[in-house]
Amino acid sequence: MNANDTTRMSGGSMALSRRQFIEELAAIGGTSLAMAGMEALGFGFTSAQAAPPTLAGRGKGVKVVILGAGLAGMTAAYELGKAGYDCQVLEARDFAGGRCQTARRGFKHTDLVGNTQVCDFDEGLYINHGPWRVPYHHRSTLHYIKQFGVPVEVFVNDNDASYVYFEKGNGPLAGKPVRKGMIAADARGYAAEMLAKCAGKGDLDAGLSPEDKEKFIAYLVTDGRLSMKDLGYHGTDGRGYDVHPGAGVDPGPGKPSTPFAFKDVLDSNAWQVLSSVTEYDQQRTMFQPVGGMDQIAKGFVRNLGPVIRYSCEVQKIAQDDRGVEVFYKSANGQGASIKADYCLCTIPLSVLKSIDLAVSDRFKQAMAGVSYAMVNKIGLQMKRRFWEEDHFIYGGHVYNDIRGIGSITFPSTGWMGQKGVILGYYAFGTDAARVSGLKPAERAKFAVQAGQKIFPEYAENFETAFSFSWHLAQYNKGGWADWSQEGRQTAYPILCEPDGRLYLAGEHLSYMPGWQAGAIESAWQQIGKIHARVNAA
Amino acid sequence: MNANDTTRMSGGSMALSRRQFIEELAAIGGTSLAMAGMEALGFGFTSAQAAPPTLAGRGKGVKVVILGAGLAGMTAAYELGKAGYDCQVLEARDFAGGRCQTARRGFKHTDLVGNTQVCDFDEGLYINHGPWRVPYHHRSTLHYIKQFGVPVEVFVNDNDASYVYFEKGNGPLAGKPVRKGMIAADARGYAAEMLAKCAGKGDLDAGLSPEDKEKFIAYLVTDGRLSMKDLGYHGTDGRGYDVHPGAGVDPGPGKPSTPFAFKDVLDSNAWQVLSSVTEYDQQRTMFQPVGGMDQIAKGFVRNLGPVIRYSCEVQKIAQDDRGVEVFYKSANGQGASIKADYCLCTIPLSVLKSIDLAVSDRFKQAMAGVSYAMVNKIGLQMKRRFWEEDHFIYGGHVYNDIRGIGSITFPSTGWMGQKGVILGYYAFGTDAARVSGLKPAERAKFAVQAGQKIFPEYAENFETAFSFSWHLAQYNKGGWADWSQEGRQTAYPILCEPDGRLYLAGEHLSYMPGWQAGAIESAWQQIGKIHARVNAA
Repeated sequence: MNANDTTRMSGGSMALSRRQFIEELAAIGGTSLAMAGMEALGFGFTSAQAAPPTLAGRGKGVKVVILGAGLAGMTAAYELGKAGYDCQVLEARDFAGGRCQTARRGFKHTDLVGNTQVCDFDEGLYINHGPWRVPYHHRSTLHYIKQFGVPVEVFVNDNDASYVYFEKGNGPLAGKPVRKGMIAADARGYAAEMLAKCAGKGDLDAGLSPEDKEKFIAYLVTDGRLSMKDLGYHGTDGRGYDVHPGAGVDPGPGKPSTPFAFKDVLDSNAWQVLSSVTEYDQQRTMFQPVGGMDQIAKGFVRNLGPVIRYSCEVQKIAQDDRGVEVFYKSANGQGASIKADYCLCTIPLSVLKSIDLAVSDRFKQAMAGVSYAMVNKIGLQMKRRFWEEDHFIYGGHVYNDIRGIGSITFPSTGWMGQKGVILGYYAFGTDAARVSGLKPAERAKFAVQAGQKIFPEYAENFETAFSFSWHLAQYNKGGWADWSQEGRQTAYPILCEPDGRLYLAGEHLSYMPGWQAGAIESAWQQIGKIHARVNAA
Repeated sequence: MNANDTTRMSGGSMALSRRQFIEELAAIGGTSLAMAGMEALGFGFTSAQAAPPTLAGRGKGVKVVILGAGLAGMTAAYELGKAGYDCQVLEARDFAGGRCQTARRGFKHTDLVGNTQVCDFDEGLYINHGPWRVPYHHRSTLHYIKQFGVPVEVFVNDNDASYVYFEKGNGPLAGKPVRKGMIAADARGYAAEMLAKCAGKGDLDAGLSPEDKEKFIAYLVTDGRLSMKDLGYHGTDGRGYDVHPGAGVDPGPGKPSTPFAFKDVLDSNAWQVLSSVTEYDQQRTMFQPVGGMDQIAKGFVRNLGPVIRYSCEVQKIAQDDRGVEVFYKSANGQGASIKADYCLCTIPLSVLKSIDLAVSDRFKQAMAGVSYAMVNKIGLQMKRRFWEEDHFIYGGHVYNDIRGIGSITFPSTGWMGQKGVILGYYAFGTDAARVSGLKPAERAKFAVQAGQKIFPEYAENFETAFSFSWHLAQYNKGGWADWSQEGRQTAYPILCEPDGRLYLAGEHLSYMPGWQAGAIESAWQQIGKIHARVNAA
C-alpha cells in the first residue's frame, strides 16, 4: 500500500483537519516534526514543501542580509521578517523576482553580448520567459499563491488535440503534424491487440491464472479500445472523426477516423511523446498566475515592506566569527557595505563564483562543481489565434524534433480572443546553443520558419517577438543548476551547509532544479538552520 | 492519411485565412457548400458545427414562433432575427436557458413530485446542474461564447492525481481511494513489460521486421516506462513519490513510490477507467463559462432584444396550409394565442407528446419512439476545500462504482479559495432511479455518506446541498433524448423533417444528445431549412 493512498487511515473522526494538525506539529517542533507527522499519517507529501518552518523562539533583532530578491531571497525575507529578524535584501536588478519574470509591453532586457530588446507586445499580452507553470504538487509555490491571494488559472500542459511533428522520422507520417491523441490511440491500440492475442493463445509466461488472464484481456480491451469480437484494434472515437457527429441526419453520426498503419506509427517516431502517465514534473493539473508569472514576485513585494535595496550589485562577501559584511555597488554607482549577523546568499553559483568570497577552499571547489543550463525562450505575438480557430488546439505543446526549437506552446489564457503570444521555442542544453548566438531578429526568423513547417498560418500572422537566453543574462548566467550525479554526491551536500555565517539558498540547492518550488523550499530549509543556530547560541 | 491531419495541404500561400474562406463559402452557398469546402481542404471539422448558416435572400417580415428559450430556441431567434425574420419566443419558465441553468443563492426549483428547494449556497458559489462543460471540439457552442464575449476558464476533465474508488473489486486495492495515475502507470507498465518480453523472445506473430521489432520495443520502453536494462516495469516517477523531491539532502531526491502488484491492479477493477485516449466526448481541453453555465444563456438574452415571452405554457399547436397558431397559458393564467408563418418547436419530446398537436400520425408515432434519460445531480457546499488542501486534487472526477453516485467532481473554479461546491453525484439511467425518489435532505445524506467512504473530511465539511433530477423537472421530463439504435433509424429521420409548417429542434435531433452543441447545431439546420423554403416560395 502506497503512502499516497492511505488517506482513509486517519478515519473520519479526526477532529482537527489535516492541515491544522500539520500546522500544530510545525508550531511545536518545526518542519521536521511536521514532516514526521505527515509521514506517520500517510499523507504522502513528506517533504518540507507543505509549509514554511515555524520560527518559534528568539529571532527578534538578529540581522540577516539576503542577497538576491528572487523567490528564495524573498521567501527568506518574508518568513524571517515575520519572526522578528531584521532583514535587508540586496538585489542587482531594478525589480524583484529573480527568474520569476514576465515580459510585457515596455519590458527591457540587455544581454551579456549587447543585444537590447524592449518588448512591444500589445497591451495585455505577455510571455513568461522564466518559470511558467506550477504543478499541483508544488505545495510550496501554491502556499504563497494562496497566502498572497494571487489569482491563478489552469495551465494546459497536456493536450491530445495538439500536434506532434517529427521530421526526422520515416514513412508517411514523418514531417507532418499529427494529433497526439491519434498516436496515443493507435500505438496503444495495436499493442493491446497484440498482447490480447498473445494472451488468448496462452503465449504469455506471466503466471496469470485463467481468471487473471480473463481480467487482463478485459483490461486490454478497455484501455486499447479493442473490439470485443475479434480483440482487434480498429480505431476509436477518442482519436477523432473525419466528419464530426452533429445534428440531423447529415452529418448525423459523423464519419469515424481511420487509424494509421502500425508500421507508420512506429516509423514516425511520434510515439516518443507517449508516457503511461505524464512525468512527475509534467503532471496535470498545472496552474499559472493570471496576467503573468511575475504576479507571484509582486505578491511577495506587496507583503515584504521596504526591505529590498534595488540596483545593488554585490562585489564582495566578507565574514569573521562575529558577523558578515557585504560590499556592493549601489544604484548611484557608489560603493557601500552592509553588516549583519548572517548572510543568506541566493545568487546563482554561475554568478557567485566570480564574486570575492570569504569561504573555505572546500566550499569554493564545491561551487565550481556544477554547470548551469543554457536555456532559450521566445514569445511570438500572433495577429490571430489560428491554432484555436483553424486547428482547434487550445493550449498544450507541439512536441517536435526540429533542432533548437524544443517545444512550441500555445497560451493558456485569453481563450478565443483575437491575438495571442505563442512560446516559439523552449530549448535547453546543447539544443539551445545554435539559437542564442543569433541576434534577436534572427532568432524570431528562426522560430517563425520552424513553426511554418507545422502551421501554414504561422508567418503571415507573426507580428513581433521577445526572446531571452538565460545563459546570456548578466545576473543569471544560466537557466538553472545542471547537477551531474557526481556533483550531487560530492559538491551539493557541502553547499547545503553553511560556511561560517554564510548560507546559500536557491533552486540550485534542491532536487527541483529550475522550479520555483526548489527555490522556496531551499530557503525554508536554510532559514530553519539559521533559526536553530540563533536559538542554540 | 487522416483528414484531421492534412493541415499542411493548403500550403502557406493561401491568402484568405481558413476561417474567412469557410465564411465566404457559407455566404455564397450556405452551410452545405461550406461543409463541402471544409472537407475538400481536409480541415477535419466537416459538420454544420463550424458556423451558423448564412441566411442570405428573403426573410424580412416572415413570422416564426419559437417554442422554448433554451439554446436551440434562442439560437434560432438570434440568427433568424439577424436575417430580418419576425420571431417571438414562448418560454414556460420565468427565465431563459432551458437546461442551461446554474443554481446559486436564491435559485428556486419545485419538482414534479412537490419537492421545493431554494439554493442557499454562499454568494459566489454555484453548481451547474445542467450542462457543465464545453469540449474544445464543440465549435458551435464556442462560436456563441466568442460571439457574446462570455469569459471562459478551463474545466479540468482528466486528473491523474484524482482518486478512483472501486468497492466492488477484490484484493487490497478494492474499496480504497487510489490515484488514477498510479493505476495508469502500473497497468500500462506491466502490460508493456509482458509485450516487450514476448517481442524479445520472438513470440509475436505480428509480422514485424527485426527493425520494426526494435522500434516496437523502444516504444514499449517509452510508453510503459520500462527499464532499458531488463525491460521490466519497476514503477515510474509519474505515478508519484512516497516522499516528494525537495530541497537540501533531506528530502533531497525524495523516495519513489512502489508499484502495486499487477494482480492487485487487475483485481481492483480500477483499470476500467483507463483509455488509450480519452473518449470523444471527454477530451481535453474543456471549458466552462466563468461564474456558471447560464452565462451562455445570458449572452443570448443580452443580444436577442425583447422577443421572449416568459411564463407562457404552450397548450396547443394548430396549423393549416397558410400558417400556424400556438395557444398558450400566459403569465397571468389567461389563455392566449400567437399566429405565425412557421413554428420552430424546441420543447423536449417527453413534454411535447402531452401537448395537443396538429401533426400526422406518422410524426406522432415517431415522437413516441424515444425515451428520455433519468439524470440526477447534486451540489454539496463544503466548508473547506479539503480535496485540494489535504489530497492535492485540483479538479477532475472520482470515478467509482458506488451505486447511484456515478462520478464525483471537484470544482474547476475558485482554486485555493476557502469553500467550494462538489458535484456529489452525477448519475443517469437506471443508476439514477434509486436517488430521485428521495427527498432533497435524504439525497444530500446519501451523497455525503458515499463521499465519506473516500474522503474522511467529507461529512465534517458538508454545509448545504442543492439537487436536481431532470426527469422530475416539469418542462424537461428527462435529461436528454436517449435514442435506441432502432429509434435512430426509424423515428429520428422523420422528426428531423418538418410536419407541415412545424419544425422541431433541440439536442434530441442531433447525435450529440445532452450537449449544448447538439441543440445549437440542430437549430442551425432547421432554420436553414425554413429559410430555403421561404426563398423557394
